[in-house]
Amino acid sequence: MNGAHALLATLQANGVTTCFANPGTSEMHFVAGLDDAPGMNAILCLFEGVATGAADGYARVTKRPAATLLHLGPGLANGWANLHNARRARVPLINIVGDHATYHAQYDAPLQSDIDSLTSALKGWQRRTLKPDDVALDTADAVRASFGPPGQIATLILPADVSWGELNVAPSWPVATPERALPLDEGIIGKALGALRRKRSAVFLGGSALDAAQLKLAQRICAATDSKMIMETFPSIIDRGTGIPIPERLIYLSEFAIAQLKDVEAIVLIGSIEPVGFFAYPDVASRLVTDDCEVINLAPPGSDTMAALENLVNGLEAPVVVVPRGDVVGEPSGALSTQSFAAAIGATMPEGLLVADESNTSGVHLFGATQFSPPHQWMTLTGGSIGYGLPVALGAAVASGERVLCLESDGSMMYTPQALWTMAREGAPVTVVALSNRSYAILNLERQRVGAVHEGSTSQRMLELDDPTLDLCSIARGLGVPATRVSSADELVRALRDSYATPGPAFIEAMLPKGLN
Amino acid sequence: MNGAHALLATLQANGVTTCFANPGTSEMHFVAGLDDAPGMNAILCLFEGVATGAADGYARVTKRPAATLLHLGPGLANGWANLHNARRARVPLINIVGDHATYHAQYDAPLQSDIDSLTSALKGWQRRTLKPDDVALDTADAVRASFGPPGQIATLILPADVSWGELNVAPSWPVATPERALPLDEGIIGKALGALRRKRSAVFLGGSALDAAQLKLAQRICAATDSKMIMETFPSIIDRGTGIPIPERLIYLSEFAIAQLKDVEAIVLIGSIEPVGFFAYPDVASRLVTDDCEVINLAPPGSDTMAALENLVNGLEAPVVVVPRGDVVGEPSGALSTQSFAAAIGATMPEGLLVADESNTSGVHLFGATQFSPPHQWMTLTGGSIGYGLPVALGAAVASGERVLCLESDGSMMYTPQALWTMAREGAPVTVVALSNRSYAILNLERQRVGAVHEGSTSQRMLELDDPTLDLCSIARGLGVPATRVSSADELVRALRDSYATPGPAFIEAMLPKGLN
Repeated sequence: MNGAHALLATLQANGVTTCFANPGTSEMHFVAGLDDAPGMNAILCLFEGVATGAADGYARVTKRPAATLLHLGPGLANGWANLHNARRARVPLINIVGDHATYHAQYDAPLQSDIDSLTSALKGWQRRTLKPDDVALDTADAVRASFGPPGQIATLILPADVSWGELNVAPSWPVATPERALPLDEGIIGKALGALRRKRSAVFLGGSALDAAQLKLAQRICAATDSKMIMETFPSIIDRGTGIPIPERLIYLSEFAIAQLKDVEAIVLIGSIEPVGFFAYPDVASRLVTDDCEVINLAPPGSDTMAALENLVNGLEAPVVVVPRGDVVGEPSGALSTQSFAAAIGATMPEGLLVADESNTSGVHLFGATQFSPPHQWMTLTGGSIGYGLPVALGAAVASGERVLCLESDGSMMYTPQALWTMAREGAPVTVVALSNRSYAILNLERQRVGAVHEGSTSQRMLELDDPTLDLCSIARGLGVPATRVSSADELVRALRDSYATPGPAFIEAMLPKGLN
Repeated sequence: MNGAHALLATLQANGVTTCFANPGTSEMHFVAGLDDAPGMNAILCLFEGVATGAADGYARVTKRPAATLLHLGPGLANGWANLHNARRARVPLINIVGDHATYHAQYDAPLQSDIDSLTSALKGWQRRTLKPDDVALDTADAVRASFGPPGQIATLILPADVSWGELNVAPSWPVATPERALPLDEGIIGKALGALRRKRSAVFLGGSALDAAQLKLAQRICAATDSKMIMETFPSIIDRGTGIPIPERLIYLSEFAIAQLKDVEAIVLIGSIEPVGFFAYPDVASRLVTDDCEVINLAPPGSDTMAALENLVNGLEAPVVVVPRGDVVGEPSGALSTQSFAAAIGATMPEGLLVADESNTSGVHLFGATQFSPPHQWMTLTGGSIGYGLPVALGAAVASGERVLCLESDGSMMYTPQALWTMAREGAPVTVVALSNRSYAILNLERQRVGAVHEGSTSQRMLELDDPTLDLCSIARGLGVPATRVSSADELVRALRDSYATPGPAFIEAMLPKGLN
């Protein structure tokens, strides 16, 4: 029994039974060990950013970690961007990085690199295991660390000789007990109650506070105190749909968010951090609340957000509120636009759908169009590193077996298109709608904001994707996923319904007018 | 005039006139500044690993740096793997990474990340510019640093407010003077001469020592002293073809390399470092020469390898040697195999071709089949991080305007397929031959070496790419490159000749038998 066996056994003993892998030579004993670990579901990815994003999606849905398997520094680097998103989603994730044998590092072989610095840049937990007998305990520590709270990335660096080396101790697979949620502060609860009663307040919800039960509590608090209920712009996962209260979403562009918050005299943070601008802009503040606004950090990420909300409901004796109901939007027809696209999604949505949303500028109407659709869950780009959508959708589908709707844009799906192949391989129930507007539309917006507006200029050409036009269907088919191109809302509705009724993945390329729309 | 203008102007003043870019919001002033910098050739890439690999290819061919433009930590991370390869190729490269405005970093916005740690893991030069007035000098310092010697990655981190801030000083664009080559040590030259005269020796060539002129000098030295002439396994770029001496290539697998070097009593390093195993394996040494072998570090990377070779030629009074000549291999016909594939390449190669080789296990016969082809240059995977081939081919084509032949494998091309789109966009003269064997064949070899040989096992399935089969032509067409599938050697010969006669990129999928062959 070697270190790789101990790793696999300890992961399984801790319920970590899915591993998204892109292995290399230094991970070959782990791969070989899979033949003795039938309970481990090892899922091959063609690129590491797919593996890490899939582990993120898995954790968002299950609240439990999956493992990755990455090949040395370059493998970790290729997976880093989606680890960044996972870090911002505050999910538990076990990141396993193979390395050269301990004694080989000194020779500066071609693949030698500074894995420790790459890992430390993830600001999570990290450890380099130095002997086979330590593997089991280190693995259990990684599992415990991954849970936080809040959830975080736990990276275990595993030198090849630790993986292939035989154990000297009797095999034993420790089971990690996650730490309890961070305690709430009674004084801050009192402060929040006072502010909610006396000031124009907002409850700012994020992280773990966005499930249906907590949204209902928040709604009661806000109704009882005439406060705003606002959610972070990019939540990890949120319950939505008919019967579930709908918070305002913090607006992405700073100027608008500042206007949204300008009358707020106190903001109560629950599962969130203080809202700040996504980017800085000349002459626009980074902080979005006014300088006078009282910021009450009631339940930071990792604390018991449900208890915080219950405390407020009880303190305010806030009565139950009826959740407003409405009709599902009607099926659109005619030309495809961002409006009719959103209506097609809303009109066809089956109950329990998981949505991985990376539609960017094309998605502005989605929240409105789906608010009275059957209950569903919505995931967003938490860390701003594009290329998260397809991998997260893959991971969510593997985790749940439920249908996932991945809303992509042509620009962003080109970061990690390889995820489509693993969807096909696993028969993952993912419907991908890729919005083709042949442009980095959000960057064209930003370009106009900085004053460069000349049409046909070099700077504009840097943000156009129509020379040549990407044939997204051809790419999807090349990766093994059946693909359809739609040019009208009617066609999109039909294609969505077809995909929901058909097992396995489907790819729909939706042709929007070019550019911002 | 703002910081972005100063950056662009200083780059151009230093002859850095090509920038491979994947910009985001924090780089938008750079993008806007392109409209005022018509001398800068900004080339859009859909993924950062394409941008960094292209800058590597550009530098291998021209010996001069191109710039990248990357978006914060995740953009740097996405480009990191090919920066690792560039680092191992010891090329000059200016890596420009946009960051949040200096005052915005404290708010931990979603895209905030530890760019400095990611950069330091590249082991090159790095600086974070803190005010617009420093941009020009910092840029010139980056250019100087990039040249080394040896060449290295110089990363300039540019906060958005430094980019958009106006200059307070008069515009002035300093021009960097590269440092001179590291001096040679007379004592070591004497030691090398002594060893070459008295011991069974090898001259181990790498880095900058692999052009035709230096290979001819090395051949004279080896002929005069009955020494072996060996090259590193994965050179950055080497002159090859008829009339150019052919060194032995150090064998990739350690056991065979150890056998190759077992009789060598002294090894003289010129442009190379001591050969070590690419990976460690149980019970196989990391060092490849014997413990008794005298290692003479005559001309380390960054020193004047030509002078080192001239010193040895003169000290030995080594006469001119005739370079063996032979016939170009005949055109193959019939079934496609690794042999007939290699013959097709060798038989059709035009003079001056640049080859970016990432054919891995399928490429074993290439060096033999091309040794008497017209003179050409060959680039290899210097850092072991797969996904280098398409981007480096793109960069080499942009740099030279000459035809590049990119030899890819299905597994490795799936890391950075997005390069094909930029090839189409730029009309880059790249012929891609993608060898489809539907497997990570090299890993299957490694899997067998670790003793996991059961057919149909989980571990084997982790290394197979035929479920579903990748349709590489469909992917290439989707990215805008005309594509052909060939199933025989005759078809491959025809497709190669067609591509060499047609402007712009071409993609050829060559169907090999499945797996190792």
